[in-house]
Amino acid sequence: MNSLEHREEIPSQSSWKRISIENVRPAIDDGRYPIKREVGDSVFVQADIFRDSHDKILARLMYRKSGSTRWERTPMHCVNPGLDLWAGDFSVHEVGSYEFAIEAFCDAYGSWVFDTHKKVDAGVSVEMDQLEGVSLLEKALQWFPQGQQSGLRQFLNAVQNAKTSTEKTAILFDPMLVHLLETHPDPSTQVVSDRSYPLWVDRIKARYSTWYECFPRSCGTSEDVSGTFRDVEKRLPDIKDMGFDVLYFPPIHPIGSTKRKGRNNSLICKPGDPGCPYSIGGKAGGHDSIEPSLGTMDDFERLTQKACDMGIEIALDFAINCSPDHPYLKNHPNWFYHRPDGTIKFAENPPKKYEDIYPLNFDTPDKEGMCNELKRIFLFWAQRGVRIFRVDNPHTKPFQFWKWVIKEIHNLYPDVIFLSEAFSRPKIMKKLAKVGFSQSYTYFTWRNSKKELIDYFSELSNQPETDFFRPNLFTNTPDINPFFLQSGGAPAFKIRAVLAATLSPSYGIFSGFELCESESIPGREEYLNSDKYEIKVRDWNKPGNIKITIATLNKIRRENPAFQELGNLRFYHAENENILFFGKSLWNNNLLVVVNLNPFQKEHSFIYVPLENYGLKPGENYEVVDLLSDKRFFWKGVKNYVELDPNEEPAHVLRIEARDPSGQS
Amino acid sequence: MNSLEHREEIPSQSSWKRISIENVRPAIDDGRYPIKREVGDSVFVQADIFRDSHDKILARLMYRKSGSTRWERTPMHCVNPGLDLWAGDFSVHEVGSYEFAIEAFCDAYGSWVFDTHKKVDAGVSVEMDQLEGVSLLEKALQWFPQGQQSGLRQFLNAVQNAKTSTEKTAILFDPMLVHLLETHPDPSTQVVSDRSYPLWVDRIKARYSTWYECFPRSCGTSEDVSGTFRDVEKRLPDIKDMGFDVLYFPPIHPIGSTKRKGRNNSLICKPGDPGCPYSIGGKAGGHDSIEPSLGTMDDFERLTQKACDMGIEIALDFAINCSPDHPYLKNHPNWFYHRPDGTIKFAENPPKKYEDIYPLNFDTPDKEGMCNELKRIFLFWAQRGVRIFRVDNPHTKPFQFWKWVIKEIHNLYPDVIFLSEAFSRPKIMKKLAKVGFSQSYTYFTWRNSKKELIDYFSELSNQPETDFFRPNLFTNTPDINPFFLQSGGAPAFKIRAVLAATLSPSYGIFSGFELCESESIPGREEYLNSDKYEIKVRDWNKPGNIKITIATLNKIRRENPAFQELGNLRFYHAENENILFFGKSLWNNNLLVVVNLNPFQKEHSFIYVPLENYGLKPGENYEVVDLLSDKRFFWKGVKNYVELDPNEEPAHVLRIEARDPSGQS
Repeated sequence: MNSLEHREEIPSQSSWKRISIENVRPAIDDGRYPIKREVGDSVFVQADIFRDSHDKILARLMYRKSGSTRWERTPMHCVNPGLDLWAGDFSVHEVGSYEFAIEAFCDAYGSWVFDTHKKVDAGVSVEMDQLEGVSLLEKALQWFPQGQQSGLRQFLNAVQNAKTSTEKTAILFDPMLVHLLETHPDPSTQVVSDRSYPLWVDRIKARYSTWYECFPRSCGTSEDVSGTFRDVEKRLPDIKDMGFDVLYFPPIHPIGSTKRKGRNNSLICKPGDPGCPYSIGGKAGGHDSIEPSLGTMDDFERLTQKACDMGIEIALDFAINCSPDHPYLKNHPNWFYHRPDGTIKFAENPPKKYEDIYPLNFDTPDKEGMCNELKRIFLFWAQRGVRIFRVDNPHTKPFQFWKWVIKEIHNLYPDVIFLSEAFSRPKIMKKLAKVGFSQSYTYFTWRNSKKELIDYFSELSNQPETDFFRPNLFTNTPDINPFFLQSGGAPAFKIRAVLAATLSPSYGIFSGFELCESESIPGREEYLNSDKYEIKVRDWNKPGNIKITIATLNKIRRENPAFQELGNLRFYHAENENILFFGKSLWNNNLLVVVNLNPFQKEHSFIYVPLENYGLKPGENYEVVDLLSDKRFFWKGVKNYVELDPNEEPAHVLRIEARDPSGQS
Repeated sequence: MNSLEHREEIPSQSSWKRISIENVRPAIDDGRYPIKREVGDSVFVQADIFRDSHDKILARLMYRKSGSTRWERTPMHCVNPGLDLWAGDFSVHEVGSYEFAIEAFCDAYGSWVFDTHKKVDAGVSVEMDQLEGVSLLEKALQWFPQGQQSGLRQFLNAVQNAKTSTEKTAILFDPMLVHLLETHPDPSTQVVSDRSYPLWVDRIKARYSTWYECFPRSCGTSEDVSGTFRDVEKRLPDIKDMGFDVLYFPPIHPIGSTKRKGRNNSLICKPGDPGCPYSIGGKAGGHDSIEPSLGTMDDFERLTQKACDMGIEIALDFAINCSPDHPYLKNHPNWFYHRPDGTIKFAENPPKKYEDIYPLNFDTPDKEGMCNELKRIFLFWAQRGVRIFRVDNPHTKPFQFWKWVIKEIHNLYPDVIFLSEAFSRPKIMKKLAKVGFSQSYTYFTWRNSKKELIDYFSELSNQPETDFFRPNLFTNTPDINPFFLQSGGAPAFKIRAVLAATLSPSYGIFSGFELCESESIPGREEYLNSDKYEIKVRDWNKPGNIKITIATLNKIRRENPAFQELGNLRFYHAENENILFFGKSLWNNNLLVVVNLNPFQKEHSFIYVPLENYGLKPGENYEVVDLLSDKRFFWKGVKNYVELDPNEEPAHVLRIEARDPSGQS
């Protein structure tokens, strides 16, 4: 309870300051957690800054990379005097931790200039005021840095030598002099924001990334023989052609044999069943080993390099699950839960049992040893070139573990990206993002109606969410075969692909999506004959696939920077409840997306284009090009007509063409 | 800059806690300033409380009067599991400073009961689980207080002696046992909110008060002779009959004679002109003296007592203005601003000069001496029974001065109420409320249209505003003769009286309002022949006065507790843009107010009654009584018709009558 015993004291009169700096933003939970940005971003900071009385103030934004002893400073400006709103910004160019704060000063000379100007304008004598101005300048000499004093003295001399009152005033009002005083404000009046506000800068991929998930063992040519990393190499051109830049593997570690699960999650494992990769650990090792049937560490590193050469990064799964055969059970039995009979406790979700998985106990007496080992696993793979981890079920491990381990990894590898696979309650998903996860899975997979999509993405694309929570929209995963895809055929797959690719700068698919695979366990959102429990072989060019749509979408994303951002998402009005209409703009890249959410039939609608965003006049003609179909449409004014047949293309992804600068429109 | 150098460290593994307590509210600026409540209130506290994994947690609200070493505790409950929202409350019964915080614990036994229940329900064997339950109870003995251990041991013995597994389970699930564990949670898992949150409790008058402002010198019978405190005594029955409970005087201190202002703020003061009471200080003394023409200190104390006997409190003005004759100028010249020629600087708002007023300089080197003197002035009057101060222009003095002086006064007289007279920018008005002002003047006087009133009062009557900013609506002041009143005649005065009296639990009028005085300086919102610069004599029963309306309104406020609150204000739909329709409810006191905002003509409208608030069914009949006119109306359902003729009464103040419990409706 000690933390609560500290009572705030009111400072003595001598340390009273006149200025208030309040409501500094962006800030997560009042600065308890860092906001997130990416390299190249401009960080726009606002605060309410004011003082009593009518005197002028000056404010500056301070910022630095963490660890630096020197603050950079840039002036802030009052952008709304009625609301005392001040703003400033700075740019971030390096991956890593930054912090910012605000300082403000009383501007006695600026106030004097302002008041004296009014007197001059009113024709009032200002001789006494001139003396006051000079006295303010002389006082300023006390705090002016040595190197700047001569400049100030020159102005003082000029005033002394001035022959007329008008001349004196002109010198005292000289903008150069005013600027000199503004850049060297009275340090005794300095007020600093209550704290510095943390900021974490990631590389751009943390915001903009395009994921393809597959099981390496399903990349081979036989259902009886595991695919290998060499087989994955052969898949790279196809994945590259579809436009993905992250290739994510579920666990690649040795799979346990004790209590191994059979096909379709069966408790009975038949001979030859390969087991579930999430039941990690066997004779060949644990989390720092590779399942022998996939290949060797050398094979893995070779694949990583080949992928890298093609602009594809390998992402690994980090799943803190141990099979009954994991070396930890022997070497560190005290890292697990024990039952009263001394046995180690397997995972349960009462009354269900998961006898092939043993969870680690984060309340173990050897917490330090266990956490350091988990950190070692991350570092082990980072040393082998892995810079993206998709973390399995982080919401069942302590938040403080993640905060600690992410910081530890970032200390050595600041470019590592962590994706949180938590499908949990909103506060928990947000907390994981606050403590450091770079990206997060979302509820996207279950948001299908227009209202659901608008509500959810209005939240995700606005502050405070955009300051710390980066959604990565998965259309499907090995665990999620959504009802929408089960029933809607290829049009449904296209609809979800367009939504994922254009609503969010990061999205992903799990292999088979491009082939419109949807066979499910009846009545459940699970795949029948899932890759999780067996080796699969696919015809990657199966008729009816939507690879061209996906490739086109990813090309559109690469070529249109507005799709590489999230906070620029805006929903617009479409009359039809099955037509979703939204836009994204960045500089002169103006995009509009119209999606028919109904995979079963053609829908048409009037849609309302926000002309003012594009500098278009009410009745003006303009051209939009559908980047999916290459068709061009000539639209006029706000209200335009669309019709979308899901059996052709369920969406328009439109770019508003720049007007011909020579013509009227 | 030292405050910014402190970097948050991540605690070592051994001190990691599992639970997060976030977003504790109500809190002003994350607990930097106290929320405000009044004696008898229940303080409703909410927070987002959650942990990783699925285990159960317990949370408690802690609270205490400041200075007490012992925290009271009351359980919090999860009121929205999906949002991890927890809530609890406690009551405050004493004026003064309180604080609250939240603590939470892991509930291992509760989780065990929950999980084991599911196994029992599924018919799974729970013998091993029973052993686990017993082991949890044995572990709990380690932290159970001595006096509570025997209870726990009895349950443990009962389990040992139970003959069947079913019996064992029944004992382990015993609600008494579960409750015992809930009330003694594992202290090693305790998490406490980041800070304690401050709360200031005022007496009820800080919320609910009815102010009458007058100049004592205008309470006499001759324009040539100052009215006195004895004359004010004669006014008390009239003020009492109108229903006011605070009588507020502009400054009653000696008025300077040097540079004294004449009538109508003239720079030329004619012989006999009494001067402006805001130019404080003369031969007879300063802020701790009484203007001799008003009477003696004994007279003042006698008046205060007589008023008190009639249920009226005297409020004094606290105006930090000095006339050229104030003793401070002689005794403490260093408390003022000096010009380069050594003269003391009078007030200016360039190019305007106020040569009769010298402002104090809060940057004086003798800040401590000056502030202590100002504190002494407050205490001087508090010692003479004054418990309400209306503070003039607080926004031109440092916020930290107010924070300090209000705290100092409250240390000795916690029942003092401070009203902030700042008509400044919103952030500044709010800041003054945050640093301690009990009540605040508002922009009410300039909010006349339906939209303006709804916008402004929606802000004032909702959190966070209601937690710290208590509006006191003045219909007029000696400085503000609003255009609306200048042109609208008696109907305008009634409209503004009804709005002030029913929108806010605190409001006030400046004398003359009840007589519908509106003569102005042409084109300005200022009174012609203002009391500020001359002695006035009024016929207090002048024909056309609205004293009965005011008396009735104040009686309605006394008899209907819903009008004594602010946060219960709700606006409802009226079709006519000149008809404002709103309601307030408290327990079974259900009030609806319909105001015709147009003083010039009759308006009618359909209005939409929120039946569901009153437990009324869609087509149901009910009776409303107009507390202003005593008329009764029989209404049916949601949509009802009103018409209001401003020349009769411009408003209905309606109470929904309780339904006859014997009949159907």
